[in-house]
Parts: sequence; C-alpha cells; structure tokens
Amino acid sequence: MEENKPAVTVLGLGAMGRALASALLAAGHPTTVWNRSPGKGVELVDAGAVEVGTAAEAVQASRLVIVCLLDHQSVVDVLATTSLSGRIVVDLTTGTPAQGRALAEWVTGRDADFLDGGIMAIPPMIGEPGAFVLYSGSRAAFDTYESVLGAFGGSRYVGANPGFASLYDIALLSGMYGMFAGIGQAFALIASEGLSAAEFAPMLTRWLVAMTGMIATTGASVDKGVHNVGVTSNLAMQSAGFSNLIDTAVDQGVSPELLAPLGDVLAERVADGHGDDSVGGIIEVLRKGGRWSR
Amino acid sequence: MEENKPAVTVLGLGAMGRALASALLAAGHPTTVWNRSPGKGVELVDAGAVEVGTAAEAVQASRLVIVCLLDHQSVVDVLATTSLSGRIVVDLTTGTPAQGRALAEWVTGRDADFLDGGIMAIPPMIGEPGAFVLYSGSRAAFDTYESVLGAFGGSRYVGANPGFASLYDIALLSGMYGMFAGIGQAFALIASEGLSAAEFAPMLTRWLVAMTGMIATTGASVDKGVHNVGVTSNLAMQSAGFSNLIDTAVDQGVSPELLAPLGDVLAERVADGHGDDSVGGIIEVLRKGGRWSR
Ligand SMILES: NC(=O)c1ccc[n+]([C@@H]2O[C@H](COP(=O)([O-])OP(=O)(O)OC[C@H]3O[C@@H](n4cnc5c(N)ncnc54)[C@H](OP(=O)(O)O)[C@@H]3O)[C@@H](O)[C@H]2O)c1
Ligand SMILES: NC(=O)c1ccc[n+]([C@@H]2O[C@H](COP(=O)([O-])OP(=O)(O)OC[C@H]3O[C@@H](n4cnc5c(N)ncnc54)[C@H](OP(=O)(O)O)[C@@H]3O)[C@@H](O)[C@H]2O)c1
Repeated sequence: MEENKPAVTVLGLGAMGRALASALLAAGHPTTVWNRSPGKGVELVDAGAVEVGTAAEAVQASRLVIVCLLDHQSVVDVLATTSLSGRIVVDLTTGTPAQGRALAEWVTGRDADFLDGGIMAIPPMIGEPGAFVLYSGSRAAFDTYESVLGAFGGSRYVGANPGFASLYDIALLSGMYGMFAGIGQAFALIASEGLSAAEFAPMLTRWLVAMTGMIATTGASVDKGVHNVGVTSNLAMQSAGFSNLIDTAVDQGVSPELLAPLGDVLAERVADGHGDDSVGGIIEVLRKGGRWSR
Repeated sequence: MEENKPAVTVLGLGAMGRALASALLAAGHPTTVWNRSPGKGVELVDAGAVEVGTAAEAVQASRLVIVCLLDHQSVVDVLATTSLSGRIVVDLTTGTPAQGRALAEWVTGRDADFLDGGIMAIPPMIGEPGAFVLYSGSRAAFDTYESVLGAFGGSRYVGANPGFASLYDIALLSGMYGMFAGIGQAFALIASEGLSAAEFAPMLTRWLVAMTGMIATTGASVDKGVHNVGVTSNLAMQSAGFSNLIDTAVDQGVSPELLAPLGDVLAERVADGHGDDSVGGIIEVLRKGGRWSR
C-alpha cells in the first residue's frame, strides 16, 4: 500500500460497497470499512482493509467518506451517529434529487463538504472501463478527489445542484427498468411456448442494441419539441399494432400488465392528432399533470 | 433488370412496403406493386416497378406475393379479392401467432403456399446488414425463395408452425416497447428540468447497451427456472430503490404510469420470498394467470 495515497472510508458493505472498497484497495488507498451487521468485511480485510466496529470510528479514520447503503433513510440514520466536521462525504446510495439536495444541506450544515453520486454500473463492473459514476454538488470536492474516485470507473460531474446526479441517475435507471420490463415480457412469451430462452437471448440483444439507434433522434426531437420530422414508423401504425402485443400475451397466458400502459399512452397521443409523429412524442403525454395517483 | 430473377409482387406501399419493393428492384427482380390508395408507387415506378390498379391484377403478375399492410384484417380483406391458386404468399404484416396460423390455413386452403414473417427492422434498415426477418410456415417455400427474401436483410427460419415467426416477432417487439417506454420516461425527466436531451442521449445509449449484458444471463436462468445464482443486484434492494423512480417522476411533474406496474411486480416477487433473486425472476410473476383484465 502506498502511503502517499489519500485514506478513504467506506460505509456499507453490501454488494456495491464491497466492490467500491475493493477498487480503492486495488488502487492502493488505505481503506477503512464498516458495515451494520458483521461478517461482510472478511475478504476486504484479507486484501488490506481495516474494519471497525462503529460508523463513528470509520468516519474518524479518513477525510474522504464514501457512503453506499440501501437507501436515503439508512444514510441519514448512520451519518447521524458520526461526527462529520472536516469530512468530504460522497453518497453513492441511490436516491431522488430531493433527497440529494436535503442530504447536501444536512451534511454541509455539519461543517463537511458534500458530493452526491449515482453509480452507473453493477458491482462486477466497478473499476472496469464500462462503469461510470455521476457526481453533483461541491465542485471543489470533485476536483480534489477526482483521481481517487477514478478508481470506480469514469467520473462525470453534472452540476453544482446536488440533485442533478440523482436526476440523471434516475433517468438512466428509468430507461433501464423499462428495458428490463420489456426483456421480462419477451422471455415470458418465449418460455410460455417452451422455446429456448438461451437461443433467443442473442436475437433479443441484437434487436435492442439496434433499436437504441432511436435514442439520438428522439433526443434531438425532444429538445425541439417537434416529433413529426423524418418519421419512419408512424404512431398510428404503432398504436394499431400494439394490440398484437397485448393479444399475444393473453393468448400465451402471460400478463401484459407491464406493457399495457404504453398502449394507452400511444392511443391517447394518436387521439390527440399526432398519428403521423414518431414514438418520442409520448413524452408530451407523460409530462401532462394529473395522470397518475398512488 | 435481369430477366432470370424471379418476379415478385408487393401488396401495400406504406413506409415498409415501399422499402421492401425498393430492395427487390435494387436486387434486379421484376416487381409489380399495388396500394389501396393511389400515389404511393411513383418513385418505385421510376425505379422500374409496374404499378397496377387492383390487388387481383398484382397477384396475377408473380408467383411470389409479398404482403405488407397495416394489420391482419387488412390482409384478409385484400387477399379475399384475389385468386391465390399456385401462389406463394409471404405475409410480412405484424400480427399475433394465432393470426399467423389462421392465415396459413386460409391461404393453403386456396391452393397456395404460405410463409409468415416478422420484420426486425425499420424501413431505412431494409436491405442493410443490420436488418433481419423471421419466417415460419412452409419450409419448401422458404428454401425455394430464401435468396429472393435475402434482398431485405438476414433471413431466419424459425419453424414449420406458422405462428412462430409472430411469436418471436412479438417477443422482440415487447422488449423494444419496454425499452421505448423507459426511454420516454428518461427523456421526460431530463426535459422536466430543462436539461439538454441531445447531450443526455449518448449517456442513455451507452447505459442501455451496457445493461443488455443481463439478457444472456437471464436467458440461461429462465431455461433453468432458477434465478438466485450469481446475483449482483438483489431484488430486495431493487424493489426498495424502485420508489426512487416513482417519487422522482412525481416530484418532476412526470407521470410514472409506464413504470409503476414493474414496481408492483418486483414487490410481489420479494413478498413471495425471492428478495435474494435477480430481476429475471419477474417472468414467474408474469406467467401467473389472472393478473390482468381489459
Ligand atoms: N448492486 C447494484 O447493482 C447497484 C448498482 C447501482 C447502485 N446501487 C446502489 O448501491 C446501494 C447499495 O446496493 P447494494 O447492491 O450494495 O445492496 P445490498 O447488497 O442489499 O446492501 C445493502 C447495504 O445497506 C446496509 N443497510 C441497509 N439498511 C441499513 C440501515 N438501516 N442502517 C445501516 N445499514 C443499512 C446493509 O447492511 P447489512 O449488511 O447490515 O444489512 C448493506 O450494507 C443502493 O442504494 C443501490 O441502489 C446498487
Ligand atoms: N415501419 C416500421 O418501422 C415497421 C417495422 C416492422 C414491421 N412493420 C409492419 O409493417 C406493416 C406496415 O407498416 P408501415 O410502416 O408500412 O405502415 P404505414 O406506412 O402506415 O402503411 C400502412 C399500409 O397499409 C395499407 N392499409 C391499411 N389499411 C388497409 C386496408 N383496410 N386495406 C388495404 N390496405 C390497407 C395502407 O394503404 P393506404 O396507403 O391506402 O392507407 C398502407 O399501404 C405493419 O404491419 C407494421 O407493423 C413496420
């Protein structure tokens, strides 16, 4: 371990916290770790980490404190047991923009600096070139510790507003969970007929990767607020064809509940006179207030 | 035009029918085209196509008849006005497996051979290496005309059951529409804060392409019916974090209606004791009957 690398503390040794601590150790940082329940730090200690018994001790050990717990409430509960004065807190727990802003206020009110982060990776990707982490909040903290944070993968500072990392994070996760819902539906249909999911998988991967081509064109049309230029797959046709997805699922004994709401949104957009638009126009429906209640 | 290439008829000159006819002309096939309303064949005629006034005449002109209309009902209505005897009908209109099987019976009952197809491409991709078309039904028809159909892109025969091309097609489209729903939600969040969608687009593309990595592992776990091996992102954590997606949308004035049902499915799977599983386990929930009604 090189003595000239900054010390780092990691609070939380779930699947992600362990991956973060491993990457710091691999980069040569003196690393202190803590987890609520014992037993999760064994391999990290073997790799050179110091495990301590309380979050307060862990926060004492390093100026830079990385937090990766289940959710915002667990972060608040754990940090409340520590003394943050002089610390730089980097919260990599997934949360909402409002939670990021609230935590920024709470942490800076305790004489500490704050960065909120959103990890765009699953644990095995941490430290690999494909991983990236979004940061917002203190620009000074980001500039000072960018090289340390680089141990996790690419770093991207998205603004002083501490809610912005979460906003981008949640937008990206929304894209991902939509895709996961579609993937689940696809596999459920294949399985319903007893066909091989493993043989189907490369076909689905190829198709979804090809269809990500619509993201760039949709981005441009969203900024312009115009969805009827260069349309190759008109909404009227897509809305008419959507019933095939519902009917096939029902015929195969698979619930269409994950996709059915999109059919309603497409139909509403067509009914509003946008049958010649491209599919990106659905954001105008989503942005109408009062459509959904708990 | 080379006289030794088989003649082909294309019924339907929407965006997709025109792309198909163009690809056939480019490959040197004598091509006869027909469309219900006039004016859509002008560029094709300039490129060498023969446009005729009725579907019946168009079907007389070639043994191989490609059909690409809006939906199954329009195909039945149009084919009913023609004499199919001795023809090979290839229906590339999107439909359900049941419709594919019904059309196969109807066409073969009229002394014709039948292939059902599912086009995995948007019109500008037709004839490019990225496009592929799924076929099911008559193996003899596929073998005889595979080289002609190759004008559209890659061809893949998926079985004698005439419903299988549609089943794979609808499974792939379900994946795609799930992804589109997620992409719409992502852009709606970015737009709600006045951030640049064009700058966000490459980040979203990169993230979704990276996350397609879960398709292969999910395929393997679906075939085994086992979802708790090698889990890096457990469902309990994902279910807990899902409220961030809903809360952020509501805070930003964006409807979470497209993603909300997935939150319910994740929660149900966790409640059923599968909190340590990976996300692919949601297919077990989707395959339970009686969850959805029109
Ligand atoms: N895994 C991923 O793919 C991934 C990707 C991107 C972001 N993330 C984010 O990273 C964070 C952690 O995810 P993970 O995969 O590491 O989850 P995990 O494996 O389920 O670990 C959860 C961690 O939170 C701790 N914890 C929960 N409630 C607590 C409380 N009230 N007080 C103190 N500690 C508490 C747990 O401690 P115990 O061991 O004592 O239960 C454990 O260390 C989440 O916000 C997640 O959204 C995860
Ligand atoms: N575009 C794509 O991205 C795409 C991708 C894969 C598959 N597909 C499938 O390809 C098929 C056609 O799509 P498209 O993009 O070409 O749609 P489109 O541009 O909207 O064209 C629809 C075609 O159907 C005809 N039609 C509609 N109702 C009819 C009826 N009752 N009788 C006779 N003709 C009728 C229309 O004729 P008129 O001109 O007289 O209205 C037109 O030729 C659909 O099944 C679609 O799902 C499309």
